[in-house]
Amino acid sequence: MSEEVFSQRTTTCGALTKADNGKIVVLNGWVHRDRNHGALHFINLRDRYGITQVVVDDDASPALQAVASELHLEYCIAVTGIVRQRPDSMVNPEMSTGEIEVKAQSIEILSRCAPLPFQIDDGKETREDLRLKYRYLDLRSQGMQQRLKLRHDFILACRKYLSSRDFYEIETPTMIKSTPEGARDFLVPSRIYAGKFYALPQSPQLFKQILMVGGMDKYFQIARCYRDEDARGDRQLEFTQLDVEMSFVKRDDVLSLMEGLFNSVFREVMNYELPARFRRLTYNDALNTYGCDKPDLRFDVPLCDVNELAQKSSFATFKDIVANGGYVKALCAPKTEGVDFSRKYITELEDAAKVYGAQGLAWIKVGENKSLSGGVSKFFAGLEAELLAKVDAKEGDLILFVAHQNWKKCCASLSAVRTKLGRDLKLIRKAFEFCWIIDFPLFEYNEEGGHWEAAHHMFSMPQAEYLDTLESDPGSVKGDLYDLVLNGYEVASGSIRIHDVELQKRIFRICNFDDKTAEERFGFLLNAFRYGPPPHGGIAPGVDRMVMIMSEQTSIHEVIAFPKNTAAVSPMDDSPSEVDQQQLDDLHLIINYPKPKA
Amino acid sequence: MSEEVFSQRTTTCGALTKADNGKIVVLNGWVHRDRNHGALHFINLRDRYGITQVVVDDDASPALQAVASELHLEYCIAVTGIVRQRPDSMVNPEMSTGEIEVKAQSIEILSRCAPLPFQIDDGKETREDLRLKYRYLDLRSQGMQQRLKLRHDFILACRKYLSSRDFYEIETPTMIKSTPEGARDFLVPSRIYAGKFYALPQSPQLFKQILMVGGMDKYFQIARCYRDEDARGDRQLEFTQLDVEMSFVKRDDVLSLMEGLFNSVFREVMNYELPARFRRLTYNDALNTYGCDKPDLRFDVPLCDVNELAQKSSFATFKDIVANGGYVKALCAPKTEGVDFSRKYITELEDAAKVYGAQGLAWIKVGENKSLSGGVSKFFAGLEAELLAKVDAKEGDLILFVAHQNWKKCCASLSAVRTKLGRDLKLIRKAFEFCWIIDFPLFEYNEEGGHWEAAHHMFSMPQAEYLDTLESDPGSVKGDLYDLVLNGYEVASGSIRIHDVELQKRIFRICNFDDKTAEERFGFLLNAFRYGPPPHGGIAPGVDRMVMIMSEQTSIHEVIAFPKNTAAVSPMDDSPSEVDQQQLDDLHLIINYPKPKA
Repeated sequence: MSEEVFSQRTTTCGALTKADNGKIVVLNGWVHRDRNHGALHFINLRDRYGITQVVVDDDASPALQAVASELHLEYCIAVTGIVRQRPDSMVNPEMSTGEIEVKAQSIEILSRCAPLPFQIDDGKETREDLRLKYRYLDLRSQGMQQRLKLRHDFILACRKYLSSRDFYEIETPTMIKSTPEGARDFLVPSRIYAGKFYALPQSPQLFKQILMVGGMDKYFQIARCYRDEDARGDRQLEFTQLDVEMSFVKRDDVLSLMEGLFNSVFREVMNYELPARFRRLTYNDALNTYGCDKPDLRFDVPLCDVNELAQKSSFATFKDIVANGGYVKALCAPKTEGVDFSRKYITELEDAAKVYGAQGLAWIKVGENKSLSGGVSKFFAGLEAELLAKVDAKEGDLILFVAHQNWKKCCASLSAVRTKLGRDLKLIRKAFEFCWIIDFPLFEYNEEGGHWEAAHHMFSMPQAEYLDTLESDPGSVKGDLYDLVLNGYEVASGSIRIHDVELQKRIFRICNFDDKTAEERFGFLLNAFRYGPPPHGGIAPGVDRMVMIMSEQTSIHEVIAFPKNTAAVSPMDDSPSEVDQQQLDDLHLIINYPKPKA
Repeated sequence: MSEEVFSQRTTTCGALTKADNGKIVVLNGWVHRDRNHGALHFINLRDRYGITQVVVDDDASPALQAVASELHLEYCIAVTGIVRQRPDSMVNPEMSTGEIEVKAQSIEILSRCAPLPFQIDDGKETREDLRLKYRYLDLRSQGMQQRLKLRHDFILACRKYLSSRDFYEIETPTMIKSTPEGARDFLVPSRIYAGKFYALPQSPQLFKQILMVGGMDKYFQIARCYRDEDARGDRQLEFTQLDVEMSFVKRDDVLSLMEGLFNSVFREVMNYELPARFRRLTYNDALNTYGCDKPDLRFDVPLCDVNELAQKSSFATFKDIVANGGYVKALCAPKTEGVDFSRKYITELEDAAKVYGAQGLAWIKVGENKSLSGGVSKFFAGLEAELLAKVDAKEGDLILFVAHQNWKKCCASLSAVRTKLGRDLKLIRKAFEFCWIIDFPLFEYNEEGGHWEAAHHMFSMPQAEYLDTLESDPGSVKGDLYDLVLNGYEVASGSIRIHDVELQKRIFRICNFDDKTAEERFGFLLNAFRYGPPPHGGIAPGVDRMVMIMSEQTSIHEVIAFPKNTAAVSPMDDSPSEVDQQQLDDLHLIINYPKPKA
């Protein structure tokens, strides 16, 4: 019948105001700060709800004084005391409990804390592996607590919205058949069947399509997905997506649903109003105007096609490229206080462009009275007005050009310049700028493998006018594909799906899966398509990335309770780790250690 | 820009009433039934929302007649037509749309359906592996659709309730360190680190405790859990639990939270009123009164301790057992119309008892005027009134006895008899009867291993009065453990946790983990406990089992969209399966196939 004995809180550390003056309360929490002035102790007691100042007066009993002297940072304690209003001069308007303090009558130490490896709330300054090793301390920081709350709020709001619109959340299995395409599968060896494996799903794609064949009509799931990719940047072995699929829909139904969802969720969670409809850009327009298919629309600086002007100019490099079917694009960097468009800075911009294939970055400065100077200005003599009008340049601006035979490389190089300018010139508005990218190419050429492959995945529907030319001209086929972009990040990707066995097989073949292999891997989907599949489509916003952007972070590690580090290791529990021989024997496995390099 | 062309529904198959009379509508769905009367076609069109009768009148165009003739069961079609009220004589009150029918103006075939391997809605009669192979057809049945909706509703209601009470849902990783204890871990080989593995979590136990150390205060998660156990009965490789943990709580806080949760959820989802507080039984009382720690309280038939009467009787078997410190327990099977307490039936009951270790089942019939007859009645001469009073027996009842040296075996054997009687005598009320089982033993003896082990898990707090005798008398230690039982199933299990390094190490040692092994496996938890851990506790209701009981099913397969079969195989996608040699090479694995048996 017994229970552990400790004084249980009657309220939290974020709740007391002067209305509670005189009440006897119990608080449970952690010593956040601890100051002694002789026999007078001030303790900032913290829990998830806030901080309350606890005072051990200098007239406190010797026993209480003794406990107070024993306290250190992050000791977990129970305080019983009386709420008293602070004198006006001591009121702290920054704290929700800043009107009061609690005069301690007794303090119990619930647990002690070893010397801290870093100060709580010092997150950003602490080496990440140390934060991850002691994640239980890092999680106590205000930042992590706020972000995990935001994540909770965001996900719950998504669930409520979709549920209110007749979507069922349905759990799909996480131990499935290995059907690798694109990324590698994580495998789970079977103990019962030697030599056989389950795979962790890269996404619930096939299962959600099968749910549609199963008549489930509207499905969603906050789904964990797994990809065994090489660690780079912000990738995690496992990540979370809001997986959505609907039957009897066309593209715009999916887009409208998502617009409604994010409108509702941003209003509820962020108190932020989004436009009812998001801007839509075709893939081609996005590349032409912003140089990439995930444009950051928080600032303008569009790219312009200046092929015509380049032809008229006397700059041989440009003229040659245009003459050979290439592209010259320009943008205008606006004059910005405190930024000098120096040679050094232009070289930095050029370096950014070169990463994406540009040979160089041509430039022209716009001087007083709209005179052009420097760089390639001399080649545009007589074309000044036309050029200024074309790129909408004003006094003090800098015009930048990239020329390239390859359209994508031309776009991407100048996009890198645009991105750097956005940051350096502080052009980026504080805003959430969503847009749709539509009409994507269905296939892209795999140079290494020497064949076409799906740009998105093999289950996306080609647009109807390309159905006759899939095989003869895969490169020009557009699909019913759509990406949702937010502030320069791709945050969701989706498509209308194929639901026809023969069309699906044609796509498999174009992607270099012969009928036998396709049947082995995806036979269960093809089978399902033989039994009255409905037209269907869906989308899958990435939860980690969405919450990262919403909380103004630049790494998804900041919005995941227990992320792996960039080496795919968890420094807290040291996973992955070696296992017992018995476990290997049970799974019929022998490790084939790579030979050490000579 | 193009999209697939089909007529998109303007309403669903469950929505139309006579108020819609005269409207032009489009319906999308499946051919559920299809009857032709000459040129008159009746099509029951089905979607997730209901069934609507579509009529192709005999005056329809030849083109429409031709399409109608082509239809077969489960073809997916779009129907455009006009809603018309049925004549009064044709109104079907069983269908929500029974007042109307839709006169088809055109029908498009969206996809065809191969001959069905079984009829939709024939679920219960179809062999399970066939249902699982064609799960996309099985999911179209009304039963599966209703159950997956119930599951969705249940889980959403749980989330809303806990969120409204300041719980954050926090995702814990599914690729963690292998810390096997109890069941086997599923392993995931690392590609980057040859010979190292992640494990899939058997539960988020350690991570939720670490979240408490991280100050998260109140956590929940609908968590997927994985156990590599031998397939038996209703086990799944992966299952779902509502994982809950709270800081600064005592046992009754957790119990109250769950009572509030299930009250709210059953009201919302089932329109069912539960009692505000659930009955609480100690482990000892549960065994004494119902013979087991998961009693079905939908019927009474309590077990009685009849040691005293047995001693007074002249039945040597009973007297010996009592004299040697054993137990004699009895129950009274109530007279039931249509049930004959024949020798044959009593033998059946005895067989049930013997499974749990009983040597036999003694019995006495209560005849007219409360006379005792048959079985061991002669040994109770003179004790009739006392016996009848003790077991509360009436005319026509049957008194049944089990005697055993071992208390648990005595209880379990008679419990099996009680369970069978409940079913056979149709004593079971249609109700949801929750109860708590508390004050569990902390340890149980592992005969095979020759050491003590945790009855629940090693992180549960011993009750305070046993702290000095943990090592000297583990068998008598009670823990702050609790199970929630519903209708004879354990549906949740939880405890107040240890949060002290030294106490945790003592428990590890008693459970045969030396300090080195404990540190290797659970070092990260012990480390966390060095940094001011709060008192905490939690619980984890099983979602699959809860929804199974709520939907009056006897297998969790019925409430999981894509379960594995009892051989741990998915007949739909044939997982687990062999993988490419390249995948094995990437993971540094060689298969050690077992030698074929001679």
